[in-house]
Amino acid sequence: MRILGIDPGLQITGYGVIEGHPMRPKLVDAGVIRLKPRTALEQRLVELEGELESIFEEHQPRVCAVEQLYAHYAHPRTAILMGHARGVILLVAQRRGVQLEQYAANRIKQSVAGHGHASKVQMQRAIQSQWNLSRLPEPPDVADALAVALCCGRNLAGAKVKSARTLGMDRVDE
Amino acid sequence: MRILGIDPGLQITGYGVIEGHPMRPKLVDAGVIRLKPRTALEQRLVELEGELESIFEEHQPRVCAVEQLYAHYAHPRTAILMGHARGVILLVAQRRGVQLEQYAANRIKQSVAGHGHASKVQMQRAIQSQWNLSRLPEPPDVADALAVALCCGRNLAGAKVKSARTLGMDRVDE
Repeated sequence: MRILGIDPGLQITGYGVIEGHPMRPKLVDAGVIRLKPRTALEQRLVELEGELESIFEEHQPRVCAVEQLYAHYAHPRTAILMGHARGVILLVAQRRGVQLEQYAANRIKQSVAGHGHASKVQMQRAIQSQWNLSRLPEPPDVADALAVALCCGRNLAGAKVKSARTLGMDRVDE
Repeated sequence: MRILGIDPGLQITGYGVIEGHPMRPKLVDAGVIRLKPRTALEQRLVELEGELESIFEEHQPRVCAVEQLYAHYAHPRTAILMGHARGVILLVAQRRGVQLEQYAANRIKQSVAGHGHASKVQMQRAIQSQWNLSRLPEPPDVADALAVALCCGRNLAGAKVKSARTLGMDRVDE
């Protein structure tokens, strides 16, 4: 089963494609979509849609995994702008009939790095270790996208991971 | 010049189409797109895209007007979800090459109701009065959509309205 993990952003959107055994999946592709920060928001969204369409078309994932929304963000402004990008991602995935899975941030961290409050660098190291990469995946958005894909694969395979509710996070009911 | 005003939301998106003289435009069409609250977010976004495409196709607006984003929202959760809908709206407008205009909430209120802190009902009354409607436009999202279209027409025509900056609101730099 091929899984596309996406870490949404209006400057950098990370993506990662994995396939195969949930604990030892193959790394098929990973990278970032960079949107020009000085370009109008609406132009960036059209560009994002086009880049996503290419990725979905090339890799034909069966599942698309993204991080769940929360009620509380440290930077509400960034969260609202991220919402614009996330809206376009969900739209493209749903339009293509791809199964959409969402996981709480601490659930992803727990699944990939072993504890729910792992730092960015710890997540990058966990991803580096998972595929025995020669260097740390950069920017961190690539690691985050691969992490959500990895978490998704393990969860769909029935791996036992503490739920977001158990970890006490305040999930947004969409 | 035909202007489409849109008030984004994940349950109700208001829209209003106006045309003609900036101070006395004709009301071409107005209504709401209702998305099923118990449907998955991604399904609602696909539905929203389809409904918007129909409206743009039918009315062929030259300009699309929406409210500007702010740094501070009373309900961050709602604001992030609204961001998903707003992302799809901007995407559809930009894909069609429609000119996009954005106005601060208090600028719209100032332009339509005469003061920057008008209530929802005051805005509905102002819209009712503008087109001599037999009853208050309901739901308020319809009035809000017509208000942003009206504000846009007046501003593009060079009507003098106090800028958001003058009124001291904290605009988000996208």
